[in-house]
This record gives sequence, C-alpha cells and structure tokens, in this order.
Amino acid sequence: MIEIAIMGHGVVGSGVAGIITTHKKKLFASIGEEIHIKHILDLREFPDSPLADRFTKDFEDIINDVEVRVVAEVMGGINPAYDYTKRLLKAGKSVVTSNKELVAAKGAELLQIAKENNANFLFEASVGGGIPIIRPLSQCLVANEVKEIAGILNGTTNFILTKMFDEGMDFDSALKLAQDLGFAERNPAADVEGHDACRKICILASLAFGKHVYPDNIHTEGITEITLADVKYAASMDSVIKLIGDVKLLDGGKMDIFVAPMLISKKSQLANIDNEFNGIMVRGDCTGDVVFYGKGAGSMPTASAVVADIVDCCKHLKARKYLFWADSTNDNIISYNESKTAVYLRLSTTDRETALAKVKEFFGDVQVLSIENEAENELAVITPVLSVEQITTALSELEKDGITALSNIRIGDL
Amino acid sequence: MIEIAIMGHGVVGSGVAGIITTHKKKLFASIGEEIHIKHILDLREFPDSPLADRFTKDFEDIINDVEVRVVAEVMGGINPAYDYTKRLLKAGKSVVTSNKELVAAKGAELLQIAKENNANFLFEASVGGGIPIIRPLSQCLVANEVKEIAGILNGTTNFILTKMFDEGMDFDSALKLAQDLGFAERNPAADVEGHDACRKICILASLAFGKHVYPDNIHTEGITEITLADVKYAASMDSVIKLIGDVKLLDGGKMDIFVAPMLISKKSQLANIDNEFNGIMVRGDCTGDVVFYGKGAGSMPTASAVVADIVDCCKHLKARKYLFWADSTNDNIISYNESKTAVYLRLSTTDRETALAKVKEFFGDVQVLSIENEAENELAVITPVLSVEQITTALSELEKDGITALSNIRIGDL
Repeated sequence: MIEIAIMGHGVVGSGVAGIITTHKKKLFASIGEEIHIKHILDLREFPDSPLADRFTKDFEDIINDVEVRVVAEVMGGINPAYDYTKRLLKAGKSVVTSNKELVAAKGAELLQIAKENNANFLFEASVGGGIPIIRPLSQCLVANEVKEIAGILNGTTNFILTKMFDEGMDFDSALKLAQDLGFAERNPAADVEGHDACRKICILASLAFGKHVYPDNIHTEGITEITLADVKYAASMDSVIKLIGDVKLLDGGKMDIFVAPMLISKKSQLANIDNEFNGIMVRGDCTGDVVFYGKGAGSMPTASAVVADIVDCCKHLKARKYLFWADSTNDNIISYNESKTAVYLRLSTTDRETALAKVKEFFGDVQVLSIENEAENELAVITPVLSVEQITTALSELEKDGITALSNIRIGDL
Repeated sequence: MIEIAIMGHGVVGSGVAGIITTHKKKLFASIGEEIHIKHILDLREFPDSPLADRFTKDFEDIINDVEVRVVAEVMGGINPAYDYTKRLLKAGKSVVTSNKELVAAKGAELLQIAKENNANFLFEASVGGGIPIIRPLSQCLVANEVKEIAGILNGTTNFILTKMFDEGMDFDSALKLAQDLGFAERNPAADVEGHDACRKICILASLAFGKHVYPDNIHTEGITEITLADVKYAASMDSVIKLIGDVKLLDGGKMDIFVAPMLISKKSQLANIDNEFNGIMVRGDCTGDVVFYGKGAGSMPTASAVVADIVDCCKHLKARKYLFWADSTNDNIISYNESKTAVYLRLSTTDRETALAKVKEFFGDVQVLSIENEAENELAVITPVLSVEQITTALSELEKDGITALSNIRIGDL
C-alpha cells in the first residue's frame, strides 16, 4: 500500500479522490500495490464526504508523515502551493500538480529541488487537462528536434471564438454564454486576455527546449478586441480565428514565442478544434506534425491526468523520472518586435482608394479582402510577411494620414 | 556508453541508424550516456555506409555479444523476427520493434518472456508510426476505463479514400496514384483489404483491455468495393467514408472489435484526418475523447518512435517498464453477427417504389438518400441500428425479391 496525500479538495482535487476510489482495481493492476489516500488538505469542512476522516487543515500533518510518499498539489495559485511543494520535495516526497501557474513561475527551481532530493515533480495535468502532452513530448518525441509547438491551449476562449464563428454571436454575448455554461470564470481576464495560454506555452517551450521560459515578458494578446467583422473577413479567406500559443525555434537557436489570435486556414488540423476543446500541434524534424486533441479542462479529465502522474510516481518511488529543464533568464528569446508574420489588417478610412494606395506604399503588395455588406469606411487587407516592428512602424505612418488599424491579427502557417 | 544492435537496414532500420547518428547530442542529454550502434544485421551489403564496419549477416554475433543491451527489430514479418526476438529476450536483452505483425501475433508471449527475464519489449512504432499512442495509452490514460478506441490506422487506404472524395478519382486510379507516390505497395492487399489496420486495432485493444486480441478471427473489411456513388451519397449526408479499426467495450465486459469502412460525420475529429495521415480516438470514462494525429508511416516518423523506445530501454536497463497484457483465446469478443450498427445500403432495383416498401418491411423506418444524377435502378437508404445478423437476414430476404445490396457500409458514431 502506498500512502498519498491530496492538497486541495476543489474541482480537480475531489476528482482525484473520486478516481482513486472508483478506479482502485485498474490502478492496482498498473502499480501492483494499492494507492491509499491518507490525508486531504483543505481549509473547508466536508463532513458528508466518505473520506471525511482523512481531512486536515494543517499542512504539517502531511509534511511530517513519513509514510506519505506522493502528494498531489491541486490547490492552484502560487501561494502557499509553492512553499508547500518546495518543502515536500526537500523532504524527499514526490509531488504531482495540475497547477500551471506554479509550474510556469517556479518549474526550474522545483525540478532542481526534486532532482537533488531524488524525488519526482510531475505536471501532466498542467497543460491540456486530460490530453496527454507532457509525457509524449518528453518521452515519445525524444528522438526529434522539436521545431515548433502551436496550440489552442485555453478552452474558454476557444468556446467563445467558436460561438462567434458558428452562430454569429458577438464577443460579449459569447462570453456571457460561456460563463452561464460554466466554461468561463466570473472574472475571465486570465482566459480572455491570454495569460492562461501563455503559462501553458511557456511550460511546453521549457520542456521542448530544455530551458525555463518565464511568462512575464512573453508577448500576450487576448481575444477581447475581435469583432464579427473580423470573423466575416476570416471566413472569406476560408479561415477561422483561434487563440494560439506558439513557440518556434529559429535558425541560430533562439525562440520566437508569443500568445496571439491567428487566422488559421480551415485545412489546418487546429482549425477544426472547436468549442471548449484544446489541441496541440508539435512539429518534429522526424515525425512531422503530430496533433493531440481533447478536453483541456474540467474536473475529471484534469483529475485523470493528475492520477496518471500519481501512478507514475508510485512506480518510480526509488528511481527518478528524467523530466527536467534548466533555469534561464529568457535570454534565448527574440524580442516580439523581431517576430515575423503576415497580418490581417482592418483599417478605418474615409477614402478606400487613397487608403489602399497608402497601404501599398507602406506594406508592399497586399491582398484586399471583401465581404458582403462591407462597411464603407473600412478596408481589409492581408500584408506580406514582415517583422512586427515593420508592421508597427507602417501602421503609425498610416495613422498620420488618418488611417487607423481597427484590427491587426497574425496569419498562422499551421 | 550503451551498446545496441539494429536488425534490418531497410526503410525503418536505416532511419533508426540515421537518427541515432544525427541526434546524438539530444539523446545523450536524455539518457546521460551515449548510444552506440555495435551491430547491424542485414543480409545485404552496404559498403558505402558510414557504418559499414558494423554490418553482420549472422544473428549469433548479436545474441552472443554480452555488451549489447538493447536491440531494435525492424526487419518486419514473423520469421525470423519472432525467433530472434524470443532468443534476445531470453538472454535478458531488451527488444524494441516496429513490427505490428509480430506484436499482433505474438505480443502476449513475448511480453511474458520479457517479464520473466527482467527485460523490456516495447513497440511504440508498431501503431501509428511516429504518433505517440502506445505510451499515452498505457501511462497517461491509466486512470481511465477505456470505453472505445477508433482509428484511421492505415495511411494507404486513407490516401485512396481522400482522393476519391476530394478529386472524384475511382478506387483503381487512386490506388495507382498511391503506388506511384510510394504510399502503397506493389501488392497492396494487406492495406486495401484491411489486414494492416486489423493488426493495429488488435494491438491497441490488447493494451487497453489487458488481454491479447488475435487478429485471426476479427471481422475485417477493406475498401476495394467502395464506389464513387457511395462517395456521393456519403457527401449528401455531410459525411466522409473512412476505414476504421474499432474496439468498443460493451456492458458485460465483452469487446466488439472489427475493421470496416464507415460513414463518418464531417463534424467528427476523425473525418478531417486526410491523405496519408493517421488518427486515433481514445474514449476514456474520465477524459472523454482524446485524439492523436500524425503521419502513421514513413521512414523517419517510424524510426523516431523506435529510437524513443530505445531511449526508454536505455533508461530502464535494470527496472522493467510495466507494459503488459495477458494471453487470451479471443473468448471475450462478441461474434460479428452480434455487432450493432446502422448501415448505409445502396440497393439495385427495377422499381424504386416497390423496393422502398420492401426495404421498410424488413428494416423498419429507413432514411432515403438522394444525389444529383442518381442511377435510376438504385435506391440508397440509412437503416436504424440493428445487429449485423438482422441486417444480413433482411438483405437475403430482399435478394429473394430481386433487390441486391451493391454497398453496405456501417454508420460510425465517432
């Protein structure tokens, strides 16, 4: 029997306890021993839980229990999860987590502490919920040089964008629907402004390229500015708009990494990933494109990934898994200004003919888009591939001539 | 330094040798030791290879070399791969293979021998080429009861079906194009008749449900009978036709497993997997649907999966991986006659009105399909869900009335 503890009894934590109880036989067959939940840490009371006798409000009960070998951290947030995880690893206990904020902010340090103490620190559930991605990336694709990872990493924003495309809902109505259905938080900023996706692409980049990528200085755009006009122009190009976390390895070894909405051709595998689903494309030099798809969040998918990590720790109580990356100062990342892309621009103008001439002057050979019932005072174009700096400069030149960018969205090559 | 041997220097084997040479640094970082290819077994001569000095025609050079710890079997076929693999495992050497025929026919026995000799027998490359599926299924999804696995498991047939749908090519022309492009063998029977897909779904079923499923008695249909009329009727239902390997766990614990073409709604994630690509959907009780997509064959994708297994063996020279399933007699599989499905039928008739009345008499409430320029003497319908036995019986009744089934294709619920 292997004694474990679970820190947090919210949406994910209660799912973890549930799966360990209901899937006992399957887990036993895999490990050859029974997993036993000895402690559950939560400040709330759960008198009606069948596990009521396991609850504690005191972390010291877990850290001081020498029988506990594996701990699931499913509290979320940096504090006190960071402090607890550090102390547990230092005590030689393995920790598994679904906490992307913690992994994105402190992953390198925690992996180093785990290594020094011959313990494991696993986090399959931190990206893509129940979609296997961390283990495939670190094990199955180990014989590949990863060239690019691009993913729809946030279910809330993907749900909103799908509703905008499929049902013509505007952003505010789609967000409200997502909130009503429980796909979005009451305070949706972390999702709709791209920060959640940013943490996840940073974790994937750290893993794929072996150096911690901190989310702090990564260019992050959300979807709050996307309008139904943009949706229609995208559709006119047989494209959809998806919020993409993208990291690309450039010649010379630096990374181009950002989170931004992108126009994606409907032929792309990522274009058909709709509603609350997530999808992650890994471009390897040997495999070509491999795509992983599924529910990126939710109690049971996420909890099942946490339990898979618990199982892995139980199988590796004495041996360490080789999941690791080194610390870094983000010095291997290019400035976003250097990032190169074609963009879709929707411009406000009083005179389309003159505006188009001006646009061509600053952007070169653009492709003009048109839709039914086009706004008279708007011009939509696709630019050639340029650096973000070139695009910004050209837009400020246009601004001087009274031509303002209403929308400015990257064209994805995925 | 870890000494390995490669048996076979064909498409996959030369790729394995290539990746180990070109990705030396990445592999070293993952293992902490260098992989060194000591022997390559092939009956042919490769005097110009940079590894020319490693070649041998004698298997005894490998089995008798105590330094060799891991062997990649990439010869294909049952003989002599089966005999060699058995002897290597008995000698305590780990074996990795891309050989689906071997795993499907002898997996349980070889896993047992590996277990008894504290060696590993891994086969990530045997299903889905470079797509990670074996490891995700056995590790990441371990906290799930798998309910169903359905996959496009053969790139050749998927390429042919895509050409029939997208370009209106008939089967023979599409097969010829696939052969010209190197996606199909000169003798394409194993692909187009479904046997290759059958081996793969048997391997996935064995792994997911813990008991060996032998391909011998599994119902296996190919795509040779599919016509452009079927393609048009499928399109009229917003569906495509895909060759699907499917295994479903029924209430009561028995499996429904088969390979057959299926009409799949365009909304399904599997419907958008085109050309030579493979895709595998795993339906878990906790994760819901998870889909894995990528190139299912080819030298480099397959070789990279073989190398990932070599790396895993190198990391587990003393510990065993827990990949295992027990032997079985296929007694946990229902007869195909008991399998339940709706089907699309294209019937030949001299009188559509009378035929439809007869069809309704035997099949109940069918949905009639229509396409432009429909053949006058044909009637296409979708039946309700029935057992295969009920469908067969009804069709033989219709046959007595001069109504013959030209096509009979399952409707997928994927």
